Amino acid sequence: MEDNRGKKIILAHGSGGSLTRRLIEEVFAGAFANELLAPLNDQAVFAMPKSQVAFTTDSYVINPIFFPGGDIGKLSVCGTVNDLAVGGAKPLYMSAGFIIEEGLDIDDLKKVVESMAKEARAQGVSIVTGDTKVVERGKGDKLFINTAGIGVVQDGLSLSPTLIRPGDAVIVSGTIGDHGIAVMTKRAGIEMEVPVESDCASLWALVSDMLGAGGCIKAMRDATRGGVATVLNEFAISSGTTIVIDENLLPVKDAVTGACELLGFDPLSLANEGKLVAVVSGESAGRVLAAMKKNPLGVDAAIIGVVEGAASGADGAGAKGRLLMETRIGNRRIIDMPSGEQLPRIC
Amino acid sequence: MEDNRGKKIILAHGSGGSLTRRLIEEVFAGAFANELLAPLNDQAVFAMPKSQVAFTTDSYVINPIFFPGGDIGKLSVCGTVNDLAVGGAKPLYMSAGFIIEEGLDIDDLKKVVESMAKEARAQGVSIVTGDTKVVERGKGDKLFINTAGIGVVQDGLSLSPTLIRPGDAVIVSGTIGDHGIAVMTKRAGIEMEVPVESDCASLWALVSDMLGAGGCIKAMRDATRGGVATVLNEFAISSGTTIVIDENLLPVKDAVTGACELLGFDPLSLANEGKLVAVVSGESAGRVLAAMKKNPLGVDAAIIGVVEGAASGADGAGAKGRLLMETRIGNRRIIDMPSGEQLPRIC
Repeated sequence: MEDNRGKKIILAHGSGGSLTRRLIEEVFAGAFANELLAPLNDQAVFAMPKSQVAFTTDSYVINPIFFPGGDIGKLSVCGTVNDLAVGGAKPLYMSAGFIIEEGLDIDDLKKVVESMAKEARAQGVSIVTGDTKVVERGKGDKLFINTAGIGVVQDGLSLSPTLIRPGDAVIVSGTIGDHGIAVMTKRAGIEMEVPVESDCASLWALVSDMLGAGGCIKAMRDATRGGVATVLNEFAISSGTTIVIDENLLPVKDAVTGACELLGFDPLSLANEGKLVAVVSGESAGRVLAAMKKNPLGVDAAIIGVVEGAASGADGAGAKGRLLMETRIGNRRIIDMPSGEQLPRIC
Repeated sequence: MEDNRGKKIILAHGSGGSLTRRLIEEVFAGAFANELLAPLNDQAVFAMPKSQVAFTTDSYVINPIFFPGGDIGKLSVCGTVNDLAVGGAKPLYMSAGFIIEEGLDIDDLKKVVESMAKEARAQGVSIVTGDTKVVERGKGDKLFINTAGIGVVQDGLSLSPTLIRPGDAVIVSGTIGDHGIAVMTKRAGIEMEVPVESDCASLWALVSDMLGAGGCIKAMRDATRGGVATVLNEFAISSGTTIVIDENLLPVKDAVTGACELLGFDPLSLANEGKLVAVVSGESAGRVLAAMKKNPLGVDAAIIGVVEGAASGADGAGAKGRLLMETRIGNRRIIDMPSGEQLPRIC
């Protein structure tokens, strides 16, 4: 392997010619090594069993590309694994598209790629096809990554927020807001007494345990951009219910609470990268929660609320979904979907 | 539908909150309308037959986003359809990831999205899942799009450049260099007597006719970045053969030849977005070519060369692949893989 210390990405690395081929062979092919990728064709071909398939994509534009608890590479695997996992799908294959700004250190690219490879290996996911583009300095920002993922949905499983009914319980898989605070403090150069690390993690193992608990899971979603507030608003809208959460039950690290109070953020709207929200039937909530708490990814899991029926509109029209929070001082307030942009490029 | 004239993308459109949801509903969901996308979950779930599946991805960073003969939206569908098609796969499903620079006209985004939707519909491809990110002004360039595609490979079909053998014929599906010259002249503001349009087109229909011709197709690739010279160098390397093409047989439009002479480009290295190169057994070349010429996408198809055995290395080691061209004046010269960057951001 060549010594790339101090070497930078140049436009010709995106030409499709010999420098592109060399970059692929030196940086990508070795790290992602698998027999489907090895021919370096423009497509990977593999056998799929007859089944329900889940397909998802996300682009990652996080700034900075290295942050406490992770980097854009790990994130680009975890995020796409999680979009499959919350659909009840075991992640199998992934694509990776890189948009690189001219001038990026090749060593930084390698670190990111190795981090992707490590996380993919740990999850049993093969990165089987990819693409590299280079844009001029000032027309990108170091590195953007897109991943798309394919997974197989467990037989007979059907998850959808439209299945949510009054009486269901709302579970969050752990402490909220960690990723948002980790990235924000790093970006702002704020030194914290107790540094907060991103929760960036792949959740399929947790979801697998949840599905195995024999409960009735209605819907799951990972609470990334827009946080738990966005997920629960979307669940309420899709199901036409009122979801009521209890502020006292929200798992939030002290350091995150402190940073939020200082900086004026709401942990409910902050991004997470290793937390999911699940709505499960009331009677099976205990069983699902117990299974979650046995998994290292769910030790801080908690039931944070319940689903209530929604009053229909004043004109007698269909019920409108909404999210309410029972506050520490005992009143209920509406939690809207966040409308502005608190922290651009958080993922 | 809201009137978006003059409205611009702002950072909050990428927040994951209510503005993101509105953008998705107003711009993407309607244009791509299909029942798999409609629930707007973070993943699409669909049944796949038990089969060989092809999976591919490309990011599109072309500048400008509107060019003669197409736009980044049409390109982002055609390019990914073509990567599946040349793998012998009928394209079925696609994902779409948008990285938008703050300040983009929402109307421009809509035009691009409608163009994607139109091409996808024409190809029978469903865009079933997607993602939208917004980056600050000066950290992107108007719009980057990533698409990933899933297709089903025709039963029993096996294509690979390693199958290429001496005696095989090399076919190109039409005139070369059109896309490169169209984008380059548009970018440079050069007015041409006979304007050249990009050949941007989806090639599955052509490939389907080729596969139906009953010949023996060894390998296919669409000749995008790096052009025909790159594809044939890669084929020669993978198969350890010498590929010899004939300059007199290359289909090149007069206007493209003229522009190349004027500007110092080689049509063999220029990008195409609707042309493929196929290597087929010598005995079936006529049959495959005839099938191609009956399809509107292949009327200018031509046999441009043959595969010869390669001499083994001076040390007796394995044969090294290379590409030669029989020139108009009758000698043979080596055509290397392009090593620099002629036209950055051509796709």
